[in-house]
Amino acid sequence: MSTEKLLSASSISLLGFGLCLFLCVHATAGEDGQTVPGAGHLVKKGERQPIISTGFGEVSGVRVSDGNETFNIHLITLEPNSLFLPVMLHQDMVFYVHTGSGNLSYRDENKRENTTIRRGDVFRLGSGSVFFIQSDVGLERQKLRIYAIFGNAGEDLREPTEYGPYSSIRDLVLGFDKKILQETFKVPEEVIEEITSGRKPEAIVRGLPGTQEKTIREREYQFIEAVFGSTSIFSIFETSNKDKKKSKKFNIFQEKPDFENCNGWSTTVTRKKYSVLKGSKYGLFMVNLTRGGMMGPHWNPEATEIAVVLQGKGMVRVVCPSLPNKAECKNARFGVEEGDIFAVQRFHPMAQMAFNNETLVFVGFSTSTENNHPQYLAGKASVLRTLDKHILAASFGINETTFDRLDNGGRD
Amino acid sequence: MSTEKLLSASSISLLGFGLCLFLCVHATAGEDGQTVPGAGHLVKKGERQPIISTGFGEVSGVRVSDGNETFNIHLITLEPNSLFLPVMLHQDMVFYVHTGSGNLSYRDENKRENTTIRRGDVFRLGSGSVFFIQSDVGLERQKLRIYAIFGNAGEDLREPTEYGPYSSIRDLVLGFDKKILQETFKVPEEVIEEITSGRKPEAIVRGLPGTQEKTIREREYQFIEAVFGSTSIFSIFETSNKDKKKSKKFNIFQEKPDFENCNGWSTTVTRKKYSVLKGSKYGLFMVNLTRGGMMGPHWNPEATEIAVVLQGKGMVRVVCPSLPNKAECKNARFGVEEGDIFAVQRFHPMAQMAFNNETLVFVGFSTSTENNHPQYLAGKASVLRTLDKHILAASFGINETTFDRLDNGGRD
Amino acid sequence: MSTEKLLSASSISLLGFGLCLFLCVHATAGEDGQTVPGAGHLVKKGERQPIISTGFGEVSGVRVSDGNETFNIHLITLEPNSLFLPVMLHQDMVFYVHTGSGNLSYRDENKRENTTIRRGDVFRLGSGSVFFIQSDVGLERQKLRIYAIFGNAGEDLREPTEYGPYSSIRDLVLGFDKKILQETFKVPEEVIEEITSGRKPEAIVRGLPGTQEKTIREREYQFIEAVFGSTSIFSIFETSNKDKKKSKKFNIFQEKPDFENCNGWSTTVTRKKYSVLKGSKYGLFMVNLTRGGMMGPHWNPEATEIAVVLQGKGMVRVVCPSLPNKAECKNARFGVEEGDIFAVQRFHPMAQMAFNNETLVFVGFSTSTENNHPQYLAGKASVLRTLDKHILAASFGINETTFDRLDNGGRD
Repeated sequence: MSTEKLLSASSISLLGFGLCLFLCVHATAGEDGQTVPGAGHLVKKGERQPIISTGFGEVSGVRVSDGNETFNIHLITLEPNSLFLPVMLHQDMVFYVHTGSGNLSYRDENKRENTTIRRGDVFRLGSGSVFFIQSDVGLERQKLRIYAIFGNAGEDLREPTEYGPYSSIRDLVLGFDKKILQETFKVPEEVIEEITSGRKPEAIVRGLPGTQEKTIREREYQFIEAVFGSTSIFSIFETSNKDKKKSKKFNIFQEKPDFENCNGWSTTVTRKKYSVLKGSKYGLFMVNLTRGGMMGPHWNPEATEIAVVLQGKGMVRVVCPSLPNKAECKNARFGVEEGDIFAVQRFHPMAQMAFNNETLVFVGFSTSTENNHPQYLAGKASVLRTLDKHILAASFGINETTFDRLDNGGRD
Repeated sequence: MSTEKLLSASSISLLGFGLCLFLCVHATAGEDGQTVPGAGHLVKKGERQPIISTGFGEVSGVRVSDGNETFNIHLITLEPNSLFLPVMLHQDMVFYVHTGSGNLSYRDENKRENTTIRRGDVFRLGSGSVFFIQSDVGLERQKLRIYAIFGNAGEDLREPTEYGPYSSIRDLVLGFDKKILQETFKVPEEVIEEITSGRKPEAIVRGLPGTQEKTIREREYQFIEAVFGSTSIFSIFETSNKDKKKSKKFNIFQEKPDFENCNGWSTTVTRKKYSVLKGSKYGLFMVNLTRGGMMGPHWNPEATEIAVVLQGKGMVRVVCPSLPNKAECKNARFGVEEGDIFAVQRFHPMAQMAFNNETLVFVGFSTSTENNHPQYLAGKASVLRTLDKHILAASFGINETTFDRLDNGGRD
Repeated sequence: MSTEKLLSASSISLLGFGLCLFLCVHATAGEDGQTVPGAGHLVKKGERQPIISTGFGEVSGVRVSDGNETFNIHLITLEPNSLFLPVMLHQDMVFYVHTGSGNLSYRDENKRENTTIRRGDVFRLGSGSVFFIQSDVGLERQKLRIYAIFGNAGEDLREPTEYGPYSSIRDLVLGFDKKILQETFKVPEEVIEEITSGRKPEAIVRGLPGTQEKTIREREYQFIEAVFGSTSIFSIFETSNKDKKKSKKFNIFQEKPDFENCNGWSTTVTRKKYSVLKGSKYGLFMVNLTRGGMMGPHWNPEATEIAVVLQGKGMVRVVCPSLPNKAECKNARFGVEEGDIFAVQRFHPMAQMAFNNETLVFVGFSTSTENNHPQYLAGKASVLRTLDKHILAASFGINETTFDRLDNGGRD
């Protein structure tokens, strides 16, 4: 398959980007960290809200708006050999494993499931799921880092729920009166007394000893099965149950990128590639730009994109579409670096570029599980190469002499 | 089928509840009537808003929120031999007949329908329907009491409509100018004058004499047919028209309960049992707890429940799910008695219990027409019986010695 | 087919309307131009918001609420031989061509499309489409007038987007930094400089010379193809792709009206008649009342109607449905004339009538693409002709003597 074909098939345009960009970016570096209303919304790493913080890991949350909906993202970090204690999900969760590895235990389709997770994995857990995660000790002692987004397809995210997207199992149980608990569990009063008067544990604790791992995992399954009975609570997964060939897990680095050239590569995870995304609100994509590489000007007519910068530094430019002859809506330009999160609403033209001395890698959630058919301005489809001289002159308000120069330049 | 099987199949857990509960309830009786934001919402009988009140019956309304949506419930009471005059529905209406009996006239699937209604009946009327109800004189001279909820599947109930869920036929007709009416109905001016200058009748009036009943009912059909023409306005019913075997009516007392033991019984009315609910926003359920009986701690991962207490007194405990390590959201505990309405949002753990000297019966509307797969904490699925010692200790923040005592207690 | 049959099949009732109506209308002419909250919403021609205004045409916008949703309507007027420059749609657009003729260029189902448009044409363009329009010089030198409504099926229109329903292609391109543009289009700096420093052209300009028309149009296709690549962005049209027999265009005057008599005619454009409307939020209808003709009292149980008066003058009466025994919601009566736009929410009874010395023609958008089954009060289905005396007397609060007079009058 030729690069030309890939270009048009995936509509991904990665162009070389010269020194001039660096200068341009450099000149605007002072404006970093701005959330510009109307076109492009940025939350810097430092603006994350801490949710959980223990000696064994932490969770921070970001609410980022595209100007219409508000998206809820959690960044979960586990130290090596740590345990994220069981929680129940109130919404669907789509996540990406950024670093490290570990073990995810959950119930799916009425069966206990246990799976290793590692860098590059994409996963979806349905609303109502109970899960817990233990990070590996690992040889490299890397932290397990997970970026997760929450929400159900068809759900209105204008007013997010007051409470979070998941709850601790302990809180769900111990929220009841002692008397109810005693009656429910048929134990002496003093036992309930001791349990309820106990200190609430941290949400992330030291991992269970590795030697016991297999046995314990087996018992963990029993726990989940016990709490949630034999009746499935995974209705969403049930509906996709017919697809027996589906893989539960998807690793982004095991796929050939949709597009790749010397300036970088990109991959989109659609429900066609990863059937577990059927019925999901979100799909996923990754863009990896080499130094000075640019994701050319394009817009997405079908989905908002919420991206997390995984590595490097670069610039994002977002254009605000507006009515002809009106220009109230301001275009945005912001620098991004590792840990920043930015959202771009559908139909807003954008370009992302790596600085000349840095790569730029970001993983994104897209409010569509299909190929988004991004629309590009350049490459083989360049406006200036094919537009009729008269329409061009009229549309861009330039005289035909200028056009000829542009035309000559563009068509070489 | 064994009780054990019923327990897991229906996931309904009804446990005996001892003296201690009564004490516990007693101690908190002073907090009754509180609507606690965030977890469980209660509207006491006295807080109902009067909508219609005549010598022959009354309608009161309750708007109850689950913290997300606002639900509109009407409580319709007809004295024996009274007539609820024709109205047109703007939304779907699902209702339960609590006491008494009568006659419901409506148009369905482009046909006139007339049906008796009596205690235990569940019914659904589609948006656009016209209906009227006459209560029986009856031997026991019981009032006809109906509890109805309104709303269409897929509808956003965050901002309820300004006007009510149904309108009087008279208002729809006489809202027009006299001149329009005269031209429309082709009658002399003075006739229109007399009609429009007439006093607006009560919405509930004395029933039509029983001797004329059959003839009159026949003419009532003609009325509805006349007003609404031969074109169906029951699009929702039309779509479910294919199911020819469906029954138009469902009586909750004619079904074997989903679960029953000495502590009570419960039944859920799903669209599988009652096909008329296909396409409905709401399903229905009933719980009947004997003295001291408890509906054990559970939550509903798929639907909000809005319940009306039909009989007796008891307590409701609702736990607010919250993020791990956060506890801003307050748990709620409130006493309920006949006529109270309470809503519990999905994913909020709850327990309902009858006082030791009272039964507690409630009928509920559920924002799902499928089996909700409630998740129970206790019974065969008790967390404490099956959870691994180490995960338990970690999750609940207790030391293993306490756990052993609990374990011994719970596993006997 | 007899008129009687048409009456019941189409549920359209057009009745003769005598001198009395004129008087009635005359008496209330002073109240024209009122937007009455709760029942019927009117935006006068003079209240339109100018959006584009050039020597070659103009666009004005109207936001009209039905009390629940807010609808966005654009009125596009091109002088003869003018060009509405390329824009990209952010929402579906359904439009009606009121006067004049021209040429519409757009991309549909991944193919370039070019079609003439003229008076009476109904058209739908999908979200993500790019289109431009050139008006004909024409022998009569008539302006090309288009009435368009925007919105996608299933979309919540309570809070319209900040920006408009379409954007100029130039703005989408030139919103990027010069450096990005230069890199993207591979042209010398000074060319970009000239383009970006150029004056922004008007959104509507002089038409391209007719002699070049064919060639230029061919190149325009190339432009659109170039900008948007070979990947389709017309997902909505793709889904209706299976219907190969569908016509892309529908002319309302080429159809036999659904109903016609000496008082006027009416036509509804449903997705059954015009398959391109499948998946659309809006259907379309037209009502043409001769002098003194009236669209009899009726309501629409399935859709809100947003109507634009094309010709003549008349009155609209809207009744506010309300709970029985409540009357807070005010009925509305307003005069309408050419260019006015009015919205009537579903379930609100209404009547529209032409003045005695004027015809009244309006085209309407309906929030349903199916037959709306309007419910009429009069004609063969007259309430007063068929309602049982006792139910009637009770419902309307009149004594039976009055009823008899009414009955005699109505049944002659």
